[in-house]
Amino acid sequence: MEAAKNSLKAKGESQRIVVAVDESEESMFALQWCLSNLTSPDTKNTLILLYVKPPPAISISSFDAPGYVFSSEVISAMEKQSKDLVSAVMKRAEAVYAKFSSNVNLERVVGKGDAKNVICRTVEKLGADTLVMGCHGYGFFQRALLGSVSDYCAKYAKCPVVIVKHP
Amino acid sequence: MEAAKNSLKAKGESQRIVVAVDESEESMFALQWCLSNLTSPDTKNTLILLYVKPPPAISISSFDAPGYVFSSEVISAMEKQSKDLVSAVMKRAEAVYAKFSSNVNLERVVGKGDAKNVICRTVEKLGADTLVMGCHGYGFFQRALLGSVSDYCAKYAKCPVVIVKHP
Repeated sequence: MEAAKNSLKAKGESQRIVVAVDESEESMFALQWCLSNLTSPDTKNTLILLYVKPPPAISISSFDAPGYVFSSEVISAMEKQSKDLVSAVMKRAEAVYAKFSSNVNLERVVGKGDAKNVICRTVEKLGADTLVMGCHGYGFFQRALLGSVSDYCAKYAKCPVVIVKHP
Repeated sequence: MEAAKNSLKAKGESQRIVVAVDESEESMFALQWCLSNLTSPDTKNTLILLYVKPPPAISISSFDAPGYVFSSEVISAMEKQSKDLVSAVMKRAEAVYAKFSSNVNLERVVGKGDAKNVICRTVEKLGADTLVMGCHGYGFFQRALLGSVSDYCAKYAKCPVVIVKHP
């Protein structure tokens, strides 16, 4: 895959735009901003919806108790819940996309792990021209403990980053 | 003046876009990004070049010595230098703008004070739809002491913020 370049394409050249989506209203608003401002009917852009699932250790730890071993039923139920969540977020994002009659290819990428690292790595791997994301995504507790995902991406993603706040 | 709204305009509605410019290559690159990606020939947008001069206390302190009183000649020479700098940055930004044959009104605003506060206040006062800026603007020492201006604006500016890094 082409590596992300922090360089400019000429006007009218097709762009690869990654929008980081999650369960929040804000990320859907960021997607709307992107469709309103970064796409044009004259250019065939590609919009990549990126959802990052938390790593299993984090998603399980909130239920965890010392010495407790999860049964395979519990683990498969949690995996199903995680899949359902991905599907719900993607469907919601697709509904937002469908409202804009735009000349845009849609792709979907689901990552797994620490959101800020996965987003920056994916942007680079996909050769993205722009990353669009909400300001407060990926959960209050993670932000409080680890700092803001959007702060990190604004610094380290290898392309321009648009940070959108929910009104 | 209309207050900045963190809401979406319909596609084709005219936009007010603030680009924070300074002496850096990166801010000129941010301006190019803006002209390539956020303006369209079909829409009459307004691009506002915002330059923030440091407050006098900061610009003078690097020359200052305890007990030293500046003569009026020194002060007026420093004021002239500051005006020349504003003029040089604005001229450079206008040259970048002129390279893009775009349907964009150009306005210039010069602020004075702490860059991050002045940028956020100006965005709000001007009713801006988008703020575009470099990642590392407004000097190494100020960043090291006070944190990044772009970090602050990404969090507190009342509109979507685009952070552009120089390649």
